Amino acid sequence: MAKQKRNYYDNVTERIVKIIPLGGLDAIGMNITAFEYGESIAVVDCGLAFPTDDMPGVDLVVPDITYLKQNASKVKGFFITHGHEDHIGALPYILKELNVPVYATRLTMAIIETKLEEHGMTGSVKRKVVSYGDVIAAGDFKVEYIHVNHSIADSAALAITSPAGVILHTGDFKIDYTPLYDVPTDLQRFAELGQQGVLALLSDSTNAIRDGFTPSERNVARNFDSVFSSFPEHRILVSTFASHINRVQQIINSAVKAGRKVAIEGRSMVEVVKLAKELGYLRFPDNALIEIEELANYPDSKTVIIMTGSQGESMAALSRAASGSHKKVTVTTNDVVLFSSSPIPGNEKAVQRLMNEISKHGADIINKELHVSGHACAEELKLIYALTKPRYAVPLHGEFRHRQANAHIAETMGIPEEQIFLMEVGDVLSLSKERASVTGSVPHGGVMVDGFGVGDVGSIVLRDRQLLSQDGIIIVALTVSAESSTLAAGPDIISRGFVYMRESEGLMEDAKALVRETVEKVLSREYSDRNMIKSEIRDALGSYVWKLMHRNPVILPVVMEID
Amino acid sequence: MAKQKRNYYDNVTERIVKIIPLGGLDAIGMNITAFEYGESIAVVDCGLAFPTDDMPGVDLVVPDITYLKQNASKVKGFFITHGHEDHIGALPYILKELNVPVYATRLTMAIIETKLEEHGMTGSVKRKVVSYGDVIAAGDFKVEYIHVNHSIADSAALAITSPAGVILHTGDFKIDYTPLYDVPTDLQRFAELGQQGVLALLSDSTNAIRDGFTPSERNVARNFDSVFSSFPEHRILVSTFASHINRVQQIINSAVKAGRKVAIEGRSMVEVVKLAKELGYLRFPDNALIEIEELANYPDSKTVIIMTGSQGESMAALSRAASGSHKKVTVTTNDVVLFSSSPIPGNEKAVQRLMNEISKHGADIINKELHVSGHACAEELKLIYALTKPRYAVPLHGEFRHRQANAHIAETMGIPEEQIFLMEVGDVLSLSKERASVTGSVPHGGVMVDGFGVGDVGSIVLRDRQLLSQDGIIIVALTVSAESSTLAAGPDIISRGFVYMRESEGLMEDAKALVRETVEKVLSREYSDRNMIKSEIRDALGSYVWKLMHRNPVILPVVMEID
Repeated sequence: MAKQKRNYYDNVTERIVKIIPLGGLDAIGMNITAFEYGESIAVVDCGLAFPTDDMPGVDLVVPDITYLKQNASKVKGFFITHGHEDHIGALPYILKELNVPVYATRLTMAIIETKLEEHGMTGSVKRKVVSYGDVIAAGDFKVEYIHVNHSIADSAALAITSPAGVILHTGDFKIDYTPLYDVPTDLQRFAELGQQGVLALLSDSTNAIRDGFTPSERNVARNFDSVFSSFPEHRILVSTFASHINRVQQIINSAVKAGRKVAIEGRSMVEVVKLAKELGYLRFPDNALIEIEELANYPDSKTVIIMTGSQGESMAALSRAASGSHKKVTVTTNDVVLFSSSPIPGNEKAVQRLMNEISKHGADIINKELHVSGHACAEELKLIYALTKPRYAVPLHGEFRHRQANAHIAETMGIPEEQIFLMEVGDVLSLSKERASVTGSVPHGGVMVDGFGVGDVGSIVLRDRQLLSQDGIIIVALTVSAESSTLAAGPDIISRGFVYMRESEGLMEDAKALVRETVEKVLSREYSDRNMIKSEIRDALGSYVWKLMHRNPVILPVVMEID
Repeated sequence: MAKQKRNYYDNVTERIVKIIPLGGLDAIGMNITAFEYGESIAVVDCGLAFPTDDMPGVDLVVPDITYLKQNASKVKGFFITHGHEDHIGALPYILKELNVPVYATRLTMAIIETKLEEHGMTGSVKRKVVSYGDVIAAGDFKVEYIHVNHSIADSAALAITSPAGVILHTGDFKIDYTPLYDVPTDLQRFAELGQQGVLALLSDSTNAIRDGFTPSERNVARNFDSVFSSFPEHRILVSTFASHINRVQQIINSAVKAGRKVAIEGRSMVEVVKLAKELGYLRFPDNALIEIEELANYPDSKTVIIMTGSQGESMAALSRAASGSHKKVTVTTNDVVLFSSSPIPGNEKAVQRLMNEISKHGADIINKELHVSGHACAEELKLIYALTKPRYAVPLHGEFRHRQANAHIAETMGIPEEQIFLMEVGDVLSLSKERASVTGSVPHGGVMVDGFGVGDVGSIVLRDRQLLSQDGIIIVALTVSAESSTLAAGPDIISRGFVYMRESEGLMEDAKALVRETVEKVLSREYSDRNMIKSEIRDALGSYVWKLMHRNPVILPVVMEID
């Protein structure tokens, strides 16, 4: 079936552009989409994903780019929409395998460069900083950067023109008519493209399930001022996303207005503030900021600390300040702690735990109306559909239910159901003005990074890690004499993560006797080998432990031979 | 300081009752509170907690009852408020160590009995079924059962009278003026007790942080009817908490009204429905229910399936139906799936994942307004304070922030701050009409249950399990000849959860050479022993692996000796 379709497309003379998402269709992360026309491939974004609960020990996950490597000569570059980890985080890993130019706006590029530096790659990667309105030629593609609002400055939508038509990729966006330190999303350019004709709209589905409009950042600013004036005597701790530079600017502004000094704490917060200040994305009087060590010189009523940890991350500044393990800041009864953030799905419990810790110190907590989302709600998406009037709709960025909600919006906006595509990762969507369908699939998936190892942790290793964590491991070591078929040394039995050995000496003695008996029985047979000994030990000890304790530790017999 | 206080209380002739929570002051679970007067101890509830992320392999957690065992002769019994796991789940474990009578209402006792049966303990545990209004004499205490509304039938508050005064323990409760198949919380008895004088009120803090009143179950019933009539052609799947019998009754009623047959699926749901039907807590026409196998005989429009899995539990019926691994039910495009539940904190992501799975089948999902909480909000708590006018307030049941919110409510109701106690687990609160303070602390904590083992998994075992799950384990086994100080066999190197060995033969060969070299160096010294060999292997191999891969597997050398 799929083959038949592919043949059809191979034979026609229509101009066909292919859209191939290699990630970004799940809950969070790993946004990367390839666009292919003839001999050209343009790739939008190159994000990482954070490991899920079933990936113990894994540091991060990067996309499988087998297809791009197979077509390396076609790949013209990575076109990055904005500087969040789920859009740029995999670049250092992927560029090692596929060194092509990277295009991004100024702040986005600066953040990418700090990553490349960590990997010692700044010298080897071609980079080009682009401005809104710039059009980059990339083989058969032209890629135009269009200004959008989002929760990080310098975000962009991309108009990707090929001979088959214009594809508009919104990136992550919202429409903020009254943003702070920014201008609204460039709706005029969207309208202009719509008039000229948009083949496909790929849009951000994160908030598609929510009715109405996402509120403006300006609301948040107002609320900060009001909280600052309600707590004139308290020290104020504010936790937010480090990359949300406009939010940090607001907090600094409210602090300056209230006559307070600001200290910045937490590695990523310190780094981003430094970078944003250098590049001019943060503006404040020279004496507005103080070092964290200088806090002691000011009364509580004159200070604000902006810090990392709004997601309850146990190693971030706020968690450490709450648990008493931070060297320079400890939460006190005279603090008011502001959460300028929402918990990312999955972090709810960690955030609750952190809030309990903070409350135990007697500090006040304010976590309402100090945050707005960076993603468009349903009415904003409708506006974009109305302005761009795309022939095809491809909901991107979001878990299935969110993309489905975006698809329903597209339908209500008059796009026929058969022109809306809820894609799966790896799908190849072939589009022309005449027709569109999924014509195949390319290799895809997540490649796990653990330490320096990229891709050497696979499903077997993960399964073993999970088994080990459940009931631990019992190691049985022994040496047999090959000549005399007798036990020459051992059995030694050692366990980890099973039971605390000092308290279970009896158990271990019984287990040893059982193993000894089992081994001697095998050795007394006419024919025996190491594998037979191992498998009988596993069986005997496994069922002994199960019967006794209802546990299933990994049992690992090590049998050595001497002559 | 604490000692001085204790001495004071030892010497006075006041009548003093002690309140000792041994659990139940955290996010979820393990509710158990001891009340002590003279030579009598009455214990309210005996719940379990579910393991947190940092307890791999642990099945459940039960309270440390060292203090109760030390005072076994005083303990008069367990007085159970209702049949939820976090109030009864530890009974089979605790009764094995402290066999005292158990008191509970009829349904609660029936649920307890199914648990005791699983542990083969029905013959050995004294039990007494009590009715609302019954007063049980327990040494110096009298314990009265009072009717309250909650998300499980037959829930009770307890009035615990001692010579020091009356302590009112609300259990888990809400006030539902228009409950279904039930009467409202017995506010008159609360008022009467208030008139006679309540020494202390221990109340449910779960929803204290929420303003207003918790809505009535009647609202939910209305919404079920309306959803059933909106989807006349679909099959209807409803997922809810198995123990919420009134909710199950509502769903069956709506189904009968709509002319649909009901199938019950999921082990705990089937068990509870059977039990509740036998005891008369569920009432429906004999032909209302069908077996799951009979579903095929009816069109979608004529069936409803009530099933477990509303929390996204991967092994529950709904998850299996969504993933295609359920033998008898598979979610289809003609299904509408109702979530009659809220995600318990920590389960949000699992529920989202499940909803995505369901949506991919093309099924509709409704998860709004089909659930109300079983816990009192702020205004309900105020009403209870107003009716009972307690001298002391002790917020129970809920994480710190919730108990703190309850404490604030008590303050607004006129209870002086120093008469409100935010206790910690294990605290001993000594109360008399004249004074109150925390006068000490008793042993407390969670005892982990893993298989048949109760308490044999401690912090060292857990830490090892976590380490093993991070980067796996490398086992190095070798045999040395004691006589000649040479390597007699090995080294053999085996790993689990580290890297997939077939793909890393080179690495393992290098590691073997390194170990061999290390061992030979140690053996060539004048004096060497097994521990020296082990520790040098650990050091050498550990730093080799770290340098090469930035990983920290557990390294376990096993050194055997032959003569």
